Amino acid sequence: MATSAKPAASLNEIRALLRDLPGPDLESGTAAVLRERNLTKPAGALGRLEDATQWLATWQAKHPPAINHPRTAVFAGNHGVAARGVSAYPAAVTQQMVANFIAGGAAVNQLCEAVDGDLRVYEMALDQPTEDFTQGPAMSEEATARAIAYGMMAVEPGVDLLALGEMGIGNSTVAAALCLGLFGGEARDWVGPGTGVDAEGLARKIAVVTEGVARNKPAMTDPFEVLCCVGGNEFAAIVGAILAARLARVPVVLDGFACTAAAAVLFVADRRSLDHCIVGHRSPEPGHTRLLKLLGKEPILDLGMRLGEGSGSTLAIHILKAAIACHTGMATFDEAEVSGRSA
Amino acid sequence: MATSAKPAASLNEIRALLRDLPGPDLESGTAAVLRERNLTKPAGALGRLEDATQWLATWQAKHPPAINHPRTAVFAGNHGVAARGVSAYPAAVTQQMVANFIAGGAAVNQLCEAVDGDLRVYEMALDQPTEDFTQGPAMSEEATARAIAYGMMAVEPGVDLLALGEMGIGNSTVAAALCLGLFGGEARDWVGPGTGVDAEGLARKIAVVTEGVARNKPAMTDPFEVLCCVGGNEFAAIVGAILAARLARVPVVLDGFACTAAAAVLFVADRRSLDHCIVGHRSPEPGHTRLLKLLGKEPILDLGMRLGEGSGSTLAIHILKAAIACHTGMATFDEAEVSGRSA
Repeated sequence: MATSAKPAASLNEIRALLRDLPGPDLESGTAAVLRERNLTKPAGALGRLEDATQWLATWQAKHPPAINHPRTAVFAGNHGVAARGVSAYPAAVTQQMVANFIAGGAAVNQLCEAVDGDLRVYEMALDQPTEDFTQGPAMSEEATARAIAYGMMAVEPGVDLLALGEMGIGNSTVAAALCLGLFGGEARDWVGPGTGVDAEGLARKIAVVTEGVARNKPAMTDPFEVLCCVGGNEFAAIVGAILAARLARVPVVLDGFACTAAAAVLFVADRRSLDHCIVGHRSPEPGHTRLLKLLGKEPILDLGMRLGEGSGSTLAIHILKAAIACHTGMATFDEAEVSGRSA
Repeated sequence: MATSAKPAASLNEIRALLRDLPGPDLESGTAAVLRERNLTKPAGALGRLEDATQWLATWQAKHPPAINHPRTAVFAGNHGVAARGVSAYPAAVTQQMVANFIAGGAAVNQLCEAVDGDLRVYEMALDQPTEDFTQGPAMSEEATARAIAYGMMAVEPGVDLLALGEMGIGNSTVAAALCLGLFGGEARDWVGPGTGVDAEGLARKIAVVTEGVARNKPAMTDPFEVLCCVGGNEFAAIVGAILAARLARVPVVLDGFACTAAAAVLFVADRRSLDHCIVGHRSPEPGHTRLLKLLGKEPILDLGMRLGEGSGSTLAIHILKAAIACHTGMATFDEAEVSGRSA
């Protein structure tokens, strides 16, 4: 690396990481299943809490799993395409909301405090939006690789669960373009109201996504190139955070449509790359459900939230903590002298 | 009352309570809606969290609502019909699980601790199961009224949210009989695997429920009579707890099939009587979804849990607390200097 004039991380180095990801720790997962069977409840009666415990043990590579230091990482970016009138809010809101996160006034601040979590907000050159993807690629390969490397910093020693989120006016349009570039279909399959555009705004989003993906199609030769073409910084950073978490044995909770669309870049590159990720909440944004089906992920919560900023991923931490509390705190049939099933 | 030789509460006195239930506090509910509109998020972006806040304000009759002293009340009862082989577990497990609750080893203990809740377990004459309802009424009117009055004690001063639960081997059979008696249909519409009976056990449950409701049909002249006919103590106590909570302005979180079936007694008596109740979790027991549709209730969580004992209602408290935390802790657009929607 010292002999290279390239930046510290290139897209090829990121691609190389994917070929050597740590796999599941089946021993820890099995230990969770075995203990679960002996706890004072009918087999399987805790439903998805039991699945969550097994998944946490498998991807933390330890039994019992623990969530003592969850972190919510929110990446904020601005998008050239926002100038095309695809959002109900002006682009200045990205920066204003970052200030709100820092001041403690946003939903994610309250939600993070409720799970005893550590909130980190990563502001990514908000005064330098990516290029408008209808005119050409949103980001260079170098800028994309840098943003991915930046996102990797969200995984620091001690963090034992990573909830992801994003903020960026216009980014449900970017997410739709990303999905269209990765999975095909029609723009209208992937475009939704986002923060709440009207019918005219929705038509504009569909036109912009169609135009942007058509314009960049020749360059969309692999999932990372799709990411460069439509952007943006917060999407690339989420890709990096997911990769770094996998390497550090930190399970990941994904949020809504934009966050899951970023994760989909990795899924298309390697289907096993999201096995350490769970989805916290189903967004009413129609593209999210379509995307979740392709990824084979069933969200933990479905509460009609459509806020982003890590709200759904952070809220779901309560359920994961509850799963561990039951797993570690419950008595076994023997300990409690409770009878098992009748013969 | 002093001149009456009757017990302290009669079914007629319970019926009279229903005619004079406190209604919604629309002023507090409206105050919640008005504040919600000014918080730094797109309108409605917190989805069901916003509905929950409004509902809590409406039924606590205060704004902002607060959950500082949630209580989980678990009522345990035994059922004569358990002797008919309708459960995968022997009836002795009811008492053993109560001991487990008291020792702190059950799922609900861990879940209650996680929400900073106060767990109360109400053991209801476990050595005196109700009568087998296939032979006649499970309980006398007096015993039913006494159990309802007993359940009312779960609402003590200071409790600001009540999560309900039950334990009773055989009680998914009782719940099915209760629903069949209240709403009609066929026994197979209401019977499910409960804690996990096999196909033969399921057929036995269907036969027992059909037989029991047919046998008692002539006496099932109103919802409280249906309750007497099929029992049991924990069902009647839940009816009492729901009523007492309404009178004390304490919102209620219902649990799975057995708990919701008990609540349905009140619903059939007066459709407004459950307006202060929300359902914490959807049970995979098929009768629960059928029942929820009739009650017009959409559960907060859907995690495949089928444990009862207040596990689903208690877990949902996290979501209600998070809703209040967002509502009270978030900045308004003005406070945070965040721009509203574009023109």
